[in-house]
Amino acid sequence: MLPKGFKVGGICSGIAKKDEKKDLALFVSESPASAAGMFTKNLVKAAPVLVDIERLRKGNKFFGIVANSGCANACTGVKGEEDAKNMCLMIEKSLNLNIGSILCASTGVIGQHLNISNEKFWRSVDLLKNNIGVSIENENDAVLAIMTTDTFVKKVSRKIEVEKGEIKIWGCVKGAGMIHPNMCGPLTGLHATMLSFILTDAEIESNPLQKILENSSENSFNCVSVDGDTSTNDTVIVLANGQSGTGKLSKLNLEKFEKTLDEVTIELAQCVAKDGEGATKFIEIEVRNTRTKMDARLIASTVATSPLFKTAIFGADANWGRILAAVGRSGVMFDVSKLDIYIGSIKTFKNGKVLNFSEEAAKESLLKKEIKVVIDLKAGKEDGKYYTCDFSYDYVRINSVYRS
Amino acid sequence: MLPKGFKVGGICSGIAKKDEKKDLALFVSESPASAAGMFTKNLVKAAPVLVDIERLRKGNKFFGIVANSGCANACTGVKGEEDAKNMCLMIEKSLNLNIGSILCASTGVIGQHLNISNEKFWRSVDLLKNNIGVSIENENDAVLAIMTTDTFVKKVSRKIEVEKGEIKIWGCVKGAGMIHPNMCGPLTGLHATMLSFILTDAEIESNPLQKILENSSENSFNCVSVDGDTSTNDTVIVLANGQSGTGKLSKLNLEKFEKTLDEVTIELAQCVAKDGEGATKFIEIEVRNTRTKMDARLIASTVATSPLFKTAIFGADANWGRILAAVGRSGVMFDVSKLDIYIGSIKTFKNGKVLNFSEEAAKESLLKKEIKVVIDLKAGKEDGKYYTCDFSYDYVRINSVYRS
Repeated sequence: MLPKGFKVGGICSGIAKKDEKKDLALFVSESPASAAGMFTKNLVKAAPVLVDIERLRKGNKFFGIVANSGCANACTGVKGEEDAKNMCLMIEKSLNLNIGSILCASTGVIGQHLNISNEKFWRSVDLLKNNIGVSIENENDAVLAIMTTDTFVKKVSRKIEVEKGEIKIWGCVKGAGMIHPNMCGPLTGLHATMLSFILTDAEIESNPLQKILENSSENSFNCVSVDGDTSTNDTVIVLANGQSGTGKLSKLNLEKFEKTLDEVTIELAQCVAKDGEGATKFIEIEVRNTRTKMDARLIASTVATSPLFKTAIFGADANWGRILAAVGRSGVMFDVSKLDIYIGSIKTFKNGKVLNFSEEAAKESLLKKEIKVVIDLKAGKEDGKYYTCDFSYDYVRINSVYRS
Repeated sequence: MLPKGFKVGGICSGIAKKDEKKDLALFVSESPASAAGMFTKNLVKAAPVLVDIERLRKGNKFFGIVANSGCANACTGVKGEEDAKNMCLMIEKSLNLNIGSILCASTGVIGQHLNISNEKFWRSVDLLKNNIGVSIENENDAVLAIMTTDTFVKKVSRKIEVEKGEIKIWGCVKGAGMIHPNMCGPLTGLHATMLSFILTDAEIESNPLQKILENSSENSFNCVSVDGDTSTNDTVIVLANGQSGTGKLSKLNLEKFEKTLDEVTIELAQCVAKDGEGATKFIEIEVRNTRTKMDARLIASTVATSPLFKTAIFGADANWGRILAAVGRSGVMFDVSKLDIYIGSIKTFKNGKVLNFSEEAAKESLLKKEIKVVIDLKAGKEDGKYYTCDFSYDYVRINSVYRS
């Protein structure tokens, strides 16, 4: 269920997709909302990313987000930025809002221009304005309109009980390929295609909201990989309109909010890995007891992006040697004689030695839909996780014919 | 044709492979040879790598290399190192050589022990001794005995004319998967499975030979990637026995030798990419006009390991946007408005702008067996290349069923 004061929707506008699929989504608040954003660190940034960064840096309040699928509006130069601003402008005009009060996002093929100047698109914007709402159908339409190779609608919602009532957080995400988000905020960043929009009726200023989003993204969106390819368009935007009526968050409630937002972002990130292009299995890689957080992340991401590991899991092969080889090339120094590796429910390697495990039991364990790999370095007290998927024939099929 | 004083051969010994395929190779010199080696920087190093590093650090002369396929003898602890030394010892005894005068290498499944203690293996060593020679058949047997998922015999030879006669260089390589060598010499290194053995009858001491090999590897073996996975076993060994009779190399002839060795190592490295697991196309990525060599290497290796780029090439799709996205996430700073990208014979992107190119011509160009990608940053005077291959259904097939 959407937080108070928000309406969403999605239609087929012809802006990008040639078939009759939905390609334009709108997320709007009836009152001005604080906003926070995370954007790709890829040096090559899509036009909508550049527009959002510029708008968020100004520190205004915002009324919503317009997003399209089918065309990434990336590497499109000056015209691309104009198109992105015009996409916002049409919504701003249609809803009688100030210029600059709408944020935008795109996903799809790189290097193509948005089909924005045709009359059909102008009519579409009015259609969209009349097709936003608060129903489950509206939610699904909005998410469908930002999907590319995604196979299911990915959305999460939570409620937080506070003294004066309840706060809602609703989030959605799209993304299945070119997924290895590496994002930072608009102030630090010069710089997938993962798009995630999170709406909340909590009352919170933009600055603390930005800080909370950055922390939350670090252990969720920035810890998911489908193929190791960081997109030019990765975008996460949170809008907080304060309409819950519960007032400014107390320190205790702020902590509750942070914790709940973490649940939402982690679940959304996991959804992306579960819907990874061609994925038949979801994999969680947990690295334990490292000296630093960075060590844990480096090891987890190296394993999560190893084609040999990911094809082995597709084949339900408990090939721990490939995990070990990936850990060894991660750049992290460690003592192999202390290392443990568990795959699924099977302990394969302990204190640097191969264990006698049942290959049949391992195979059975790896035929499950969700696989957990644990790598324990016993070198310190830090840990980290990465969410990924296996590497199947379908990944190759999807990506060898994507553009044509 | 082998350089003077060398004999090679390969047999089926039962040391590792269960079928009747050749799995044990021997490369020997009739006189003591200078030696140089490059070994994986993977923190997890196979037993034969540790044994070779120890032996090369002592700076002795060597009589040969024994190598097996089917079992990597990696993550096998103290017993693994004993097995590697025993593999050498059997050859040393059989040929009446000093202990420590044979080097060794292994490739295959990680975490399994060599099947070295059985009687069949002891008999095999004598068989091997009697099956080495200088014929093309002997060369092929030796290379076949180190192959795993390789589909063809990879060897290269060159002659260098000098005043007093001619010097020969002969090299072979195996490797198709877990290929992203990152190697250094035995002195600097703590640290694929790519194995390469290079034999020459040039007269050259170990120290200059090591330096020449390190330089040569940097632009050849360390610039090839099949899947981005750096092995625990990558090994390159050069033996120089001086039997050409052309005497100590003059400065001019040393330069000729270096140049010719570069030709050999680059051709061997290219062979590895051409025979990459499941490869249908060989890809050369050339990055031009970067500020530093490291910038060129970083960009080239990021593109070479991008699953999205590699699947697009498999699909003969001129998806330059994926190349641009990879360049953008490489970590190198550059000016997009100066960037050019050529795929095959097609110019797709110039000075930061998409060019109008014929998709049909691009498709035709990408249906060729060898594809060259050029990325020009126009930021400096350095350049660099990477050799790789496309990413096909067969890569997934080979690696999802490899161990079982």
